[in-house]
Formats: sequence, structure tokens, C-alpha cells
Amino acid sequence: MIILNTINDIRLEIKEVLRDGKSIGFVPTMGYLHEGHLSLVKRAKQENDIVVVSIFVNPTQFGPGEDFESYPRDLERDSKLVKDAGADIVFAPQVNEMYPEGCSTYVEVEGNITKKLCGASRPGHFKGVTTIVSKLFNIVTPHRAYFGQKDAQQVAVIEKMVRDLCLDIEIVPCPIIREDDGLAMSSRNIYLNEEERRAATILSDSLFKVQEMIRHGEKQASRISDFIISNIKNEELAEIDYVEIVSAKTLEEIEEIKGDVLIALAVKIGKARLIDNIRLEV
Amino acid sequence: MIILNTINDIRLEIKEVLRDGKSIGFVPTMGYLHEGHLSLVKRAKQENDIVVVSIFVNPTQFGPGEDFESYPRDLERDSKLVKDAGADIVFAPQVNEMYPEGCSTYVEVEGNITKKLCGASRPGHFKGVTTIVSKLFNIVTPHRAYFGQKDAQQVAVIEKMVRDLCLDIEIVPCPIIREDDGLAMSSRNIYLNEEERRAATILSDSLFKVQEMIRHGEKQASRISDFIISNIKNEELAEIDYVEIVSAKTLEEIEEIKGDVLIALAVKIGKARLIDNIRLEV
Repeated sequence: MIILNTINDIRLEIKEVLRDGKSIGFVPTMGYLHEGHLSLVKRAKQENDIVVVSIFVNPTQFGPGEDFESYPRDLERDSKLVKDAGADIVFAPQVNEMYPEGCSTYVEVEGNITKKLCGASRPGHFKGVTTIVSKLFNIVTPHRAYFGQKDAQQVAVIEKMVRDLCLDIEIVPCPIIREDDGLAMSSRNIYLNEEERRAATILSDSLFKVQEMIRHGEKQASRISDFIISNIKNEELAEIDYVEIVSAKTLEEIEEIKGDVLIALAVKIGKARLIDNIRLEV
Repeated sequence: MIILNTINDIRLEIKEVLRDGKSIGFVPTMGYLHEGHLSLVKRAKQENDIVVVSIFVNPTQFGPGEDFESYPRDLERDSKLVKDAGADIVFAPQVNEMYPEGCSTYVEVEGNITKKLCGASRPGHFKGVTTIVSKLFNIVTPHRAYFGQKDAQQVAVIEKMVRDLCLDIEIVPCPIIREDDGLAMSSRNIYLNEEERRAATILSDSLFKVQEMIRHGEKQASRISDFIISNIKNEELAEIDYVEIVSAKTLEEIEEIKGDVLIALAVKIGKARLIDNIRLEV
């Protein structure tokens, strides 16, 4: 496995890979990797000749007052982990490599799909995501790109961007990986102290319970969200940002649990803003 | 030469071209072609194995009240012309092929480079241009793309977009092609009646005269623009939109004629809004 830091260097590698007629699987990450990321790398390795992993904490997707500066970083550990998971190339650029001075071009998916859910509490977040992912796609030119379903809205936004901009890249959403007690894996779980870590299971606990309710026939979205809200309120350390029941593809709100449904939540626990979701075909 | 109308069809062709290791030159146009466009096609043919010409009147770069509906179209004539000039593939999609319902992703170069000159009188114009050019680049995946220097601001904006989004495409600006009396060729010249057509030479006349002034040592930008304004005012049918003297790369205003200088104007004559410019290395 090789680690590259400049666009020029990775371009030369990619050209060689393509000249040999090999397929490229791409896993864009912000580093501080966990089993969720590694599941993407392993899946990419199964489906492609070459796997590229980018590690870049992207400043443009953080709002003012968010955790860009304090976001955890550990390139050495990350490199070992992705090597073991089967990566061939790590691309780990500095900020000024991806955003040189004067850089002012943005890619934006407009509409409710980026305005609701995380877009409501993090204005500009998805504009930062689609811009950096576009740049990385243009550099890596992957055949397939792998994203975790934990960031369900991100997956929907990227899928729409690829469709709208006529990019010839297959987006592969991959299942959420959870800790034994149900907590969705996230680099931000590091922010939780012991007590908060216990409290954080309230997200997955709520989702698993409403999954049961739906399995037993509940069809009304408002009853599902009411249940989640009251369940989370049992947890003193938890502060709800949003609970949304939407169509998984368009992220438009729904009243009846029917079709491809996404139940998504964001909850603040201590310094950490955690998200989780389940997607159901009803 | 083949004419294709769908993204799927041209993608299949492009894949074959790339599989054979051939280089692709791309000339994006809005059709109703003149010698200016054909000079781009010929240049592309000299420098690439395969030349793709797109013909698409892009609705998103026209503002409300502009000439999208009335913009001249003649695909049959255009096809013959580009075939003779050496094109291999014409891509002529319908509007709903490039902008299917619900399409809401845009590429935008922010800052003065798109806000000034034509951007001031045509808000949203360059957002439409960068969005459609991005899509076409993603479909055609050219090695080189050819643009006429008549749209000097467009060239600067596209060059910036390519740099900012890390696209691996060489942008090749090509010289303005003029009628015998100096008028820069443009599809919009068709809007001019006989009298207006004679009046339209006031643009190139002004530019040629200030080129002489600069050759004779004039260094002060304000004296150059004053001269152009008073020269154009001699022509009753002409109504100035802007006269700008700027750095050719950043489009920032300059006071001294020095370095890579762009002198650009937009003038309304009858229904037509005409643009012209000269670029000088001083």
C-alpha cells in the first residue's frame, strides 16, 4: 500500500491503474477510522481491482463553532487499519492541496434534500460535502464509491449529485456497523465520557423499538416519532436535534409508513452530536 | 461522423474510444455554428484522435426575458459544417436529457470573476454555464476542451472551475474569428438588420483603435475606457452595457495597462447584445 499526499502523485498512479484496465473502488473518509469504515474498504476490495481510501478532514463541511479543529486525527493508525483491510492507495492531502488560496468553486445540491434533517441544523454542511466529494471523484475517477448508510442523508445527496451531474460512478451504500450494545460506530463517539457513552445507546434503542412497532403493524408516522421523542426524553443527558420519518430517496416527510422509509435522528449528548437511522422497506 | 442524442449512447462510444487509448478533443457549442466554432473543431482535430462537438442550447444560462426561446437553431446545417471541419461525434441532446425533472445540482464559481462584466447584467448566467459544462465534461471525459476567446469571461471562469474542481482537462482558448469588417463572429449577429449590422462594427472599431493607443504608449486604463465610451457614443444605434479593463486571468479591474490585460465590452444594438474584447500582453 502506498500513501500519497498530492493530487499530482495520485493522478500518476490512477493513470497507470486505468492503463492496465483495472477497476477502482473508492472510500472517501475523514479518518479516525472504525469498523464501519473498514467494512467499506473490505467491500470495495471484493468488488474492484484497486481500492483507494482518502483521509481528509474537510473544513468546508464544518460550520462555524463546529468541531473541525478538534475532530480526531490519527493518520498512522488509520494507515495500518486500511492496509490490513485491503486498501492499495491512501490519499491524505493537506487542506491547502484541496483548497488552494482563491479556490471558490462549489458543487451544491439544492432543495429539501439538503435543507432538511442535518441540513437544517448544519447549514452549508452538504455544500461542503458535495464539493469535496466532487473534487475527490475528479481526482480518483473511481468506478464505484462506498459510503456508510449511517450518514443516510449524505448517501441520498451524493446519489442525487451523481445522477444530476451525469457522473459515471456507482454509489454503493453499506450497512451501519454497530457496537455490541447497539451504538452506531462513529469517529465522534470518542467525545463521549463513560456516562454519556451509556446514555448514547438511547438512539439505537429507540430505533430498534420502533422497528418492532412497525413489524407489529404500526403504520402512522406521527405515532412512531412521538414514541421516539418520549423514549429519548427518558434519557436526561440526551437533547434531541431532530426525529424525522421520510422517504429514503427524496427525504420528503411521510405520514404513512409505506415504501422505502427512513427513520433518522440526531441527538446531542455532551459535546457529541450523534446521528443514527434505520431504513425499512414496508 | 455519428450524431447521438442520449447520454447512454455517447457514453458507450466514449468508452470504446478510451479503450482504444485514443485522445478526445471536445468543443461544446450552442449550435448555429459559424467560422469561430469551426476553427475550434479544426484545432481540436489537429490535437486529438477523436473530436466530439456538443450542440445544446442550454436553458440554465439564459435569464428571464433573455433569448432562450428565439436563439437560432439549425441542427441539420450544423451537422454538415462540423462534419466537414473534422468532427467524429456530435452530441445533440434534448433539454430533458440534460435536465430531467427534479434535477437540482449546480456548479458555481463564486466571486468577482462571475459577478462582474457579463455576470453583472446576466445574473445566474455563469452558474448555468459551469453547470452544463461540468455535466458535458463528465459525459464526454475529454483530454482537451476548446473555447472561443470571444467569450473571454467564460474562458476565465471555466479555467478556474477546472482548476478548483481538480478536473484533469486542458482548456484551450482559441482566437476570435472576425468578419472582413472586424465584427466578431457570433450566432447572435443574425438578430441584426442591415443598418444595425453596419453599426455593430463600432465594437471592433473601438478595440482596434485603443490597441493602437496602447501600442503608442498609453498606459492609463481610464483614458482607454473613456475613449471607447465616447467612440461608441458616436454610434446612435449602440447602447453600452459595459466597458471593462481588467486582468485577463482574475478579471479584477486594473488602473494601469500592464501584464496580461483584457479589454472587454458589451453593447446592445437593436435586439442583439453583442460582446467583444482584445487581450494584450503589455
